[in-house]
Amino acid sequence: MIRILVLLVLTLQLSHTAAQTDDERQIKAFYDLSLSEGKAYDWLNYLSNQIGGRLSGSVQAEQAVSYTKTQLDSLGLDKVWLQPVMVPKWVRGTPEFAYLESKPGYTSNVPICALGGSVATPPGGTKAQLIEVNSLEDLESLGREKIQGRIVFFNRPMDPKLLNTFQAYSGAVDQRSRGAAEAAKYGAVGVIVRSMNLRLDDYPHTGSTNYGDLPEKDRIPAAAISTNGAEFLSTTLKLDPNIQFFFKLNCKQLPDVQSYNVIGEIRGSTKPDEIMVVGGHLDSWDLGDGAHDDGAGCVQSMEVLRILKMSGYKPKRTIRVVLFMNEENGLRGGRKYASEADLNKEKHVFALESDAGGFTPRGFSFDSSESDFNTLSGWQSLLEPYQSAHFTRGGGGADIGPLKKPGMVLAGLRPDSQRYFAHHHAQNDTFEHVNKRELELGAAAMTSLIYLADKYELGTAQ
Amino acid sequence: MIRILVLLVLTLQLSHTAAQTDDERQIKAFYDLSLSEGKAYDWLNYLSNQIGGRLSGSVQAEQAVSYTKTQLDSLGLDKVWLQPVMVPKWVRGTPEFAYLESKPGYTSNVPICALGGSVATPPGGTKAQLIEVNSLEDLESLGREKIQGRIVFFNRPMDPKLLNTFQAYSGAVDQRSRGAAEAAKYGAVGVIVRSMNLRLDDYPHTGSTNYGDLPEKDRIPAAAISTNGAEFLSTTLKLDPNIQFFFKLNCKQLPDVQSYNVIGEIRGSTKPDEIMVVGGHLDSWDLGDGAHDDGAGCVQSMEVLRILKMSGYKPKRTIRVVLFMNEENGLRGGRKYASEADLNKEKHVFALESDAGGFTPRGFSFDSSESDFNTLSGWQSLLEPYQSAHFTRGGGGADIGPLKKPGMVLAGLRPDSQRYFAHHHAQNDTFEHVNKRELELGAAAMTSLIYLADKYELGTAQ
Repeated sequence: MIRILVLLVLTLQLSHTAAQTDDERQIKAFYDLSLSEGKAYDWLNYLSNQIGGRLSGSVQAEQAVSYTKTQLDSLGLDKVWLQPVMVPKWVRGTPEFAYLESKPGYTSNVPICALGGSVATPPGGTKAQLIEVNSLEDLESLGREKIQGRIVFFNRPMDPKLLNTFQAYSGAVDQRSRGAAEAAKYGAVGVIVRSMNLRLDDYPHTGSTNYGDLPEKDRIPAAAISTNGAEFLSTTLKLDPNIQFFFKLNCKQLPDVQSYNVIGEIRGSTKPDEIMVVGGHLDSWDLGDGAHDDGAGCVQSMEVLRILKMSGYKPKRTIRVVLFMNEENGLRGGRKYASEADLNKEKHVFALESDAGGFTPRGFSFDSSESDFNTLSGWQSLLEPYQSAHFTRGGGGADIGPLKKPGMVLAGLRPDSQRYFAHHHAQNDTFEHVNKRELELGAAAMTSLIYLADKYELGTAQ
Repeated sequence: MIRILVLLVLTLQLSHTAAQTDDERQIKAFYDLSLSEGKAYDWLNYLSNQIGGRLSGSVQAEQAVSYTKTQLDSLGLDKVWLQPVMVPKWVRGTPEFAYLESKPGYTSNVPICALGGSVATPPGGTKAQLIEVNSLEDLESLGREKIQGRIVFFNRPMDPKLLNTFQAYSGAVDQRSRGAAEAAKYGAVGVIVRSMNLRLDDYPHTGSTNYGDLPEKDRIPAAAISTNGAEFLSTTLKLDPNIQFFFKLNCKQLPDVQSYNVIGEIRGSTKPDEIMVVGGHLDSWDLGDGAHDDGAGCVQSMEVLRILKMSGYKPKRTIRVVLFMNEENGLRGGRKYASEADLNKEKHVFALESDAGGFTPRGFSFDSSESDFNTLSGWQSLLEPYQSAHFTRGGGGADIGPLKKPGMVLAGLRPDSQRYFAHHHAQNDTFEHVNKRELELGAAAMTSLIYLADKYELGTAQ
């Protein structure tokens, strides 16, 4: 019996080693292709520098749809198409303008930008005293008496002690996403929010603010101020609490317009009905060129299919790249894709999103069953040589979220997060801040994960 | 017996857990201090932007000595001093100039820079036909006949498929370090070397070239060309092998001058005679401001002692920060420090260098005994929460190399290497390419390692 067990263990180990070796070889080939014949960086150059910021409903967003569709068409995929989706169209209008006024005529300009979705100020701007707070809870303790007629200045910084900057972001972003809605309830006339940025610099960072069910007439204008500006404001307020703040926003919400998700697929050789998605979002904010958020994720996802084709690997399942429209201010693309999948009774088994910047990949986070996570953990050693083997449980990504069903696995690429919020939603989210090799390493890690999930049939459909 | 064993195991596990918890707490405190009250970035700002490139023997190198000494003086260390060392003084002179000439009057400029240590061209420059090669070995197979009177163009790129870019550098840098000496033996009149850079861009990257024992009269001028320039040269040569290349270098080797290593220490509380060094090199090349190479390593090393002081931890051993002079073109500082240590019969047990850029730390490499490496591996779990737990065997750093004796442990910080060679020795090795948090994470990882090596008395002296 012992002898049989030993033999069995040896056999298992041998077959394991053989399988490992095939996988190791295949993954090495993906990395070699990505690092020496990659196309992601060129695509990103075009998206960033020839097209630019791609806010939903903008000319640039439509150019990006057309460009990426053309590029996918050139890859020899089995099918490439556009999936129509109606998207909100919010426009920034005339550049924003703000200053502090210590006494009439004595003013200092500060760099601000409207938060996405904000209403405009009255045409002549809004001028009022400021009240500085650190949290939404502060509003309640201050009460209407102290807030009425004022501009609320939310100034809680992201926590620098948190290693994962996305945690630091989560811990501060309620000021941006709900500050205006909450402050309006206490009679505030406007909201200024410290930018979601761990650096001290002069770039204001935009991002959505959400009024919830607040009636339109009660909505108040909301803007982000750069971190340096926030420090200046706070210091000045301590010296003179009666200082006046002026700001002017010209932004507008227009009627929804037609846009598209861009989709391409390699049809599965033996299980074409099982669909695996890899994607990012094609829209971006309008201040920078959206290179990290999320041009990087889009070109990496396109690159996954290109590398699979070049490598000669024939997936069993259907591998689909989806470039989602409107993640930033509506998630309409993600919702539309999921509802169409339902309508068409498509069986999605796995989805991977890259939407955390084009930095050196450290690993992936997974939204999966315990047992699928155990399977995934068994693959870590394959990514360890590439130092991208940090696997955690967590979300996949906003756009693929609506696809989630029991049995399905969602995954998110997790790049090094230290630099991300220095660029996120700001004027300096630009191509020159993306490193070619870091971008390519992400594409290679994603290809490797898609390959393993296909080969070992991770995830099931309901 | 089983019961006793179980008890023993439980006891061991408990004491292990308690010790771990103390270490975890201490390391968390180091990270918190570094990320929220760090000084490294401010120091680096001064070194880079107020002082600038710090080539040995330059005014800036002396300013850096004076500045860092003053800063160490302010930290309340037990002793701060300058250690005199004579250093070579090589100066670049008038900016370099080069062009391709397809026929008289038809020229295209290309960006070059003299390699450190190169001799000048004749005052009127050097003009000759080019011969492109990929390796030192190519020289032998071509022979004197094909090389005599020509400029040898070394154009082997760094291998993009190697994940660790330092490996790619090692695989290509012989062209720069020995190309001129070798080509001279075959009668070449000059050498142009493709920059050690994985990116395609317009920056030439300098770095030492070494003539070995070649008599002065036989030495030929050597320059680096940007990677874009190298591609252009190579393409043009294919179209017209008879093209002429002109370049003019005005650099000079002057007599050695006085400089200093900058040293500060916290005296050990119980084992003051056991010395642990943490350091980087204060000199840099002259093209950029030396922010990554190696301003980052210097300020991180200073920060280690500052964090230890702030945290209240009292090291048993003497912890010494050493800012070495002249790593780039002589290693005189490292050699001098080691020879003085010998003369003074100092017992060095551990040395850590940071000289691979101020990027997100991934771990450390160690030059140590097998058993010390096992001890070190036991500490990896303490750095895993900070994703800096990639421990490998390998070198520590050039400056601490001369200190090495049996029993001693040398360590090197290993940051993410993807971006490093885009800046290394070039005009764009500048402060704005260093991220504050990444720099601080390195300092915190280094402090943690120094703490553990002190507390658990890693390394022995002969």
